Amino acid sequence: MIIDQLNKNKYTTMSESKPKVLIVGLGGVGIMAAYALEYGSKAEVTAVIRSDYDRVIEKGYELKSVDYGHIPNYKPSNVVKTVQDALKFGPFDYILVITKNIPDISNVEDIYADAVTPKHTTIILIQNGIGIEKPVFERFPGNVVLSGVSMISSSNFSGVVDHVSTDILNVGYFDNGVTSKEEQESKTREFIEIYSNGKNTVHYDEDVKYVRWRKLIYNATLNTICSIVNLDTGRMDYANGMESIIRPAMKEVIKVAKSDGVELDEKFIDFMIESDIDIYYAPSMLVDVRKGNQIESEVILGNVVRIAKENKVDIPILSTVYELIKLVQFRLKEANGYIKLPEVKPKRGE
Amino acid sequence: MIIDQLNKNKYTTMSESKPKVLIVGLGGVGIMAAYALEYGSKAEVTAVIRSDYDRVIEKGYELKSVDYGHIPNYKPSNVVKTVQDALKFGPFDYILVITKNIPDISNVEDIYADAVTPKHTTIILIQNGIGIEKPVFERFPGNVVLSGVSMISSSNFSGVVDHVSTDILNVGYFDNGVTSKEEQESKTREFIEIYSNGKNTVHYDEDVKYVRWRKLIYNATLNTICSIVNLDTGRMDYANGMESIIRPAMKEVIKVAKSDGVELDEKFIDFMIESDIDIYYAPSMLVDVRKGNQIESEVILGNVVRIAKENKVDIPILSTVYELIKLVQFRLKEANGYIKLPEVKPKRGE
Repeated sequence: MIIDQLNKNKYTTMSESKPKVLIVGLGGVGIMAAYALEYGSKAEVTAVIRSDYDRVIEKGYELKSVDYGHIPNYKPSNVVKTVQDALKFGPFDYILVITKNIPDISNVEDIYADAVTPKHTTIILIQNGIGIEKPVFERFPGNVVLSGVSMISSSNFSGVVDHVSTDILNVGYFDNGVTSKEEQESKTREFIEIYSNGKNTVHYDEDVKYVRWRKLIYNATLNTICSIVNLDTGRMDYANGMESIIRPAMKEVIKVAKSDGVELDEKFIDFMIESDIDIYYAPSMLVDVRKGNQIESEVILGNVVRIAKENKVDIPILSTVYELIKLVQFRLKEANGYIKLPEVKPKRGE
Repeated sequence: MIIDQLNKNKYTTMSESKPKVLIVGLGGVGIMAAYALEYGSKAEVTAVIRSDYDRVIEKGYELKSVDYGHIPNYKPSNVVKTVQDALKFGPFDYILVITKNIPDISNVEDIYADAVTPKHTTIILIQNGIGIEKPVFERFPGNVVLSGVSMISSSNFSGVVDHVSTDILNVGYFDNGVTSKEEQESKTREFIEIYSNGKNTVHYDEDVKYVRWRKLIYNATLNTICSIVNLDTGRMDYANGMESIIRPAMKEVIKVAKSDGVELDEKFIDFMIESDIDIYYAPSMLVDVRKGNQIESEVILGNVVRIAKENKVDIPILSTVYELIKLVQFRLKEANGYIKLPEVKPKRGE
């Protein structure tokens, strides 16, 4: 309680200047989140930008935004190359984590750990998947961790950001089991207040698991299966894949969600199937596979399979799809140098 | 009986000249089969060669053969462009069918139907998969149909044939339910006698289903799964795929075989897994996928799934793998122009 009180005081002090927000992961979504925060002038943004650093320092980003119009050069208040460099702009009240989440390659918590003030910094995970809060709770016990599920469509092409569908963000808290629910809810509402700017839409998310499971109906199935067989959504439809495998796989997701305490209406299956059926749309994971990038297979499907196993839910399709997507990930890892294989395979036992 | 007697006489007459063999499908295996037959001088071979016709007429094939040494230019006795052109060299006592078998694209029986003398011509299917005799029985009732399972390793690179592992052929009959078993066996032994030439090895196959199911332990699993995820056997091992999915899938094949009356020892699983584990070997179907060629998914896996369904055998992995390989086949068909899709996908219901 004393610490909570201290934190409250601290926050009050800070809001006299402005709450300090660190953003890790400046892709299409992250850049627009930075802009959204600064557009409302309710936060001071520090952005960690590694590969694009020089260009952003020199020219900023060009935003072509459905919400904000054409912004020729947007530069976040503070641009730094590393989290270490960011510390001088802290301590941070919020850390927005908008990176890809690929725990089988690297630990996202490692990246921003130094910027977390214990029991003070609120960490917002705008990332895909289910069960992603667990490693964050373990690493930062007592910090409030929020779930951000974004509906934005925004892509960064070498500094030019094509933001084509409006920024809708669902924010709720993952119950950390340490802080009181009231405190967690209040931190959530504070962040919503800071992020809302009249142009975007931010919803308070009463049930973060629900929103995440609902999204997984699509992501754990269409996203993964399109990626394995290298077909976009329209072609998946022509190939009869929507009925032969996607729909039955989606039903399995609903079963696992149920075992995890989330009841999802089966109508969402039709909604998800129909959402991109009339276009040749490559889901994000397929885009990554085609680019040769690593994929978020563990948080999107691996965790679903693990929850199913824990709850003894039979998911024959998803289990097989998971084994296959892991093999695809292996292929991508080798292509990207994360795995080095000997040129001649040594005989077993040698 | 009268017809059988006639056929026997016919055969006797012909063998005074030589039995006439039509070969359809002159790939690496087909070319060596043609050569094997002519090397023994016990048959007159007519080869249907479409795309390579001009080159073969002009220069023949260059064979680099583990069994026969270096043959600078081998030309089958009769080289024709089409089965229609072949008829003048008939009637045929045997038709060797060594084409790929992709019933979802084209019907192999259509290709050679005109060269089949009813109840006389023996049709030898040197092709992968299970259940491949059924459409042949339906089309040519009363003809003897043999199963040829080849262990050869031989590839044709633009007229240069690299024949690297010796020609071992298992030949038996698919019981057509019309001709007597004695007659079918005798036809089988006749063909073995003609094909055997002192350099190759031909086994009489008492149980063609057994040999085919045994081969499917590998083909229905490793071949298909490597093709879906684009990994060779060595990499499949490094990625732990041999244990995570290949072995469980192989167990399912053994279950389906059992339901089809074929008992396979589980030791074959280890044998199949270990056969190519110490090298980066791309199974034939993966080679085809990488080249962008159509694959034999229906005879290698589709028929397995159908037999399992008929016999009510639960095969969760193979069923899912089959749904996925069909999607891969769709992708390949579109790439090869077998499927034409509209540039803009029309809305459903329009």
